[in-house]
Amino acid sequence: MPHDAALAALETVLGDRLSRSKPDLEAHGTSETHFPPTPPDAVAYPETTEEVSRIMAICTDHGLPVVGWGAGTSLEGHALAVQGGLCVDFARMARVVEVRDTDMVARVQPGLTREGLNAELRATGLFFPVDPGANASLGGMASTRASGTTAVRYGTMRDAVLALEVVLADGRVIRTGSAAPKSSAGYDLTALMIGSEGTLGLITELTLRLQGQPEAIGAATCAFETIDTAVEAVTETIQTGLPMARIEFVDAATVAAVNAHSKADFPARPHLMVEFHGTPAGVAEQAERFGEIVAEHGGTGFAWADRPEDRSRLWRMRHQAYWAILAARPGTTAIVTDVCVPISALARAVAETQADIAAAPIPAPILGHVGDGNFHAILLMDPDAPAERAAAEELSRRMAERALRLGGTVTGEHGIGMGKLRYMAAEHGAGWEVMGTLKQALDPQGILNPGKMLQQD
Amino acid sequence: MPHDAALAALETVLGDRLSRSKPDLEAHGTSETHFPPTPPDAVAYPETTEEVSRIMAICTDHGLPVVGWGAGTSLEGHALAVQGGLCVDFARMARVVEVRDTDMVARVQPGLTREGLNAELRATGLFFPVDPGANASLGGMASTRASGTTAVRYGTMRDAVLALEVVLADGRVIRTGSAAPKSSAGYDLTALMIGSEGTLGLITELTLRLQGQPEAIGAATCAFETIDTAVEAVTETIQTGLPMARIEFVDAATVAAVNAHSKADFPARPHLMVEFHGTPAGVAEQAERFGEIVAEHGGTGFAWADRPEDRSRLWRMRHQAYWAILAARPGTTAIVTDVCVPISALARAVAETQADIAAAPIPAPILGHVGDGNFHAILLMDPDAPAERAAAEELSRRMAERALRLGGTVTGEHGIGMGKLRYMAAEHGAGWEVMGTLKQALDPQGILNPGKMLQQD
Repeated sequence: MPHDAALAALETVLGDRLSRSKPDLEAHGTSETHFPPTPPDAVAYPETTEEVSRIMAICTDHGLPVVGWGAGTSLEGHALAVQGGLCVDFARMARVVEVRDTDMVARVQPGLTREGLNAELRATGLFFPVDPGANASLGGMASTRASGTTAVRYGTMRDAVLALEVVLADGRVIRTGSAAPKSSAGYDLTALMIGSEGTLGLITELTLRLQGQPEAIGAATCAFETIDTAVEAVTETIQTGLPMARIEFVDAATVAAVNAHSKADFPARPHLMVEFHGTPAGVAEQAERFGEIVAEHGGTGFAWADRPEDRSRLWRMRHQAYWAILAARPGTTAIVTDVCVPISALARAVAETQADIAAAPIPAPILGHVGDGNFHAILLMDPDAPAERAAAEELSRRMAERALRLGGTVTGEHGIGMGKLRYMAAEHGAGWEVMGTLKQALDPQGILNPGKMLQQD
Repeated sequence: MPHDAALAALETVLGDRLSRSKPDLEAHGTSETHFPPTPPDAVAYPETTEEVSRIMAICTDHGLPVVGWGAGTSLEGHALAVQGGLCVDFARMARVVEVRDTDMVARVQPGLTREGLNAELRATGLFFPVDPGANASLGGMASTRASGTTAVRYGTMRDAVLALEVVLADGRVIRTGSAAPKSSAGYDLTALMIGSEGTLGLITELTLRLQGQPEAIGAATCAFETIDTAVEAVTETIQTGLPMARIEFVDAATVAAVNAHSKADFPARPHLMVEFHGTPAGVAEQAERFGEIVAEHGGTGFAWADRPEDRSRLWRMRHQAYWAILAARPGTTAIVTDVCVPISALARAVAETQADIAAAPIPAPILGHVGDGNFHAILLMDPDAPAERAAAEELSRRMAERALRLGGTVTGEHGIGMGKLRYMAAEHGAGWEVMGTLKQALDPQGILNPGKMLQQD
């Protein structure tokens, strides 16, 4: 094995927390979607920042690739060891380090999941708002600049992370930011690390901004004839200043899949799912205004989920839409696309995508975070049917190129990983070269998550 | 002159928009506060990004330092040409390029001021919320990661800037971000440029996130016995989830100066000034709850400024506090400090600072953005009295070091410039070396705003 010396050195640091077992390598070489398996040479389970620093120094000495691993929920193959090397699994660094009620911040380790954090926060009156659907690790969410259903109100990981501890390629440990709510002291290294997908360092601790649990929550659904009218209603709601906590769009095909999977009976038309957070009077007022806006735009079947259990069911259905859609066509896998456009271009982007899908040989339900201009198509394909894969890839390519043409981005929240690398030049132009310059400056050997995001030699 | 060749080359690009007049050089070598004048060798007034790119290429060829200039309102000497060279004044790049109502964004040139933008937005129902008090240029505000009174609700320039056009040291033009509300596509170059104080590039265009003008606004003042009780009231208000649009603290000394300057009659005690934005019913509800919280914490004299003119007067007084304080001691200049700490440490930070000031030979009123943990002391000194300057510098140093000890930052919103360079190592440790590595990668000759922010050779 070419990496024997490196792995031996790692073993002296980690003992039996360096795994080379076949099931472990396979589990860390597989992703949730359609990418071919690429197992690492070994999996490390560090327990401290100090260990991560020593691991990194060894990998630098030996030129061994290093890929971080959280919960494995990436949809773009971020954590695949495409050049082999070491997978650093943060399963044993998954604690809440500290919750500071008055400051409304939590310090956490990167392997902790968002649901794990919220379970620990339940009694505090605080919660962590970023909700990508999957129970992702917080380190992974920071690394991909994740967001999800609540970004329209609470922002993305860019907004939710106040400070980081990061181990650099050479083993140095830096602390970026602080628990102070803001700072103008120097380059925003926190923001540089967020969304860098493990190519500039490994995150070993996060300081997260928490929110107060809302006193009152109201959730509702309503049906529209077309995506255009649904988007118009959303645009007007935003401009009116109504602070929606979530505003989700699902198309008729998604509704059909959800109905079948969750034994629900929504009309088979495009729907909006909305949620408001606030005081009882505030939520009631927002609900009333939203109802008026919906009616003006031809929305029907407007129904509030008043009871907490009805609301939970509603969002469970939304979060399970991906699985519902997969279940609707057994034996298939999916390319889950992710584009984001200016709100003014959203209706057009969705309509043109729907036209593409109607002409394609595969089904592809659409759903998205309509308040952010962000939507997904679940491109269902038989992985063994080359024509279906080609059709899915063509639809995905057309969506990405359309998003750029309309002034948007090829990924609103899933990240680049393996799937979007081909569009980086088109999206960023000379900016992509600048990213390469920064990468070269901080990781001159290119050992951090090689094969991802940056221009490949 | 050592720079003759460079200036001649610049003149071929700019003609008479390259100025070497003495008044122009002096005006661009002076700052609003206490730093000694350091004029540039010439001032350029470009009109297009293309011109800025050509300017930068010439400066790179000749190794000529380049410093950007907006409205000259920096409090830390950011735009001073401490190594001479070229000052690039964006006075002729100060237009609104485009307002996109549906997307709630504006594209603007860097020389436009925030008041200029808001004047143009008045009829649209939208406004740009970041308000540092001074009528700063938007390019300068981005470069220093400015914020101000409304950050508690609407965030800082980090949150308000969606996309940038930047001219790099070598003349390349990059576009970072887009008008889409979010993106996970690669390194966050927008955030890297925001707060980089002209050391990584010159911003030639900004895409800004706008907000809907609130339907209703309520503003109020109330007095407290101590900073502790005032901060407790603010903390509880934030945790309750009441969305304050502004929440400002002024100490008794500031109140006295404001009373004298604005012919007001506030009781000479610490005050909070608060503002709520929303629907009429929402603002009324928030006002009522805030009043209850204030009463619980011993706040008195709670008074709403219901009429728009009363509200305008209130915030004009707050914004003029700096001038009121200067006027209270004619012939003095000021070191305007700026620290930011976690909210839980704010009362202690202010109280210890007040104790320092009480023991010092100079007056120093305190005021700040209490919802962000950010406060300032206006250290008034006779510039010709070395003992006063020494006392002011000592107070400032103790505030900065205290902020770090309490887990905060040496600047919440004013930036590093000349005044805070000495604290960068203490605040960032190895992170400051990383900033130097990034600077070296993007500006290997060090021509961009030399002498600021980074480790000096």
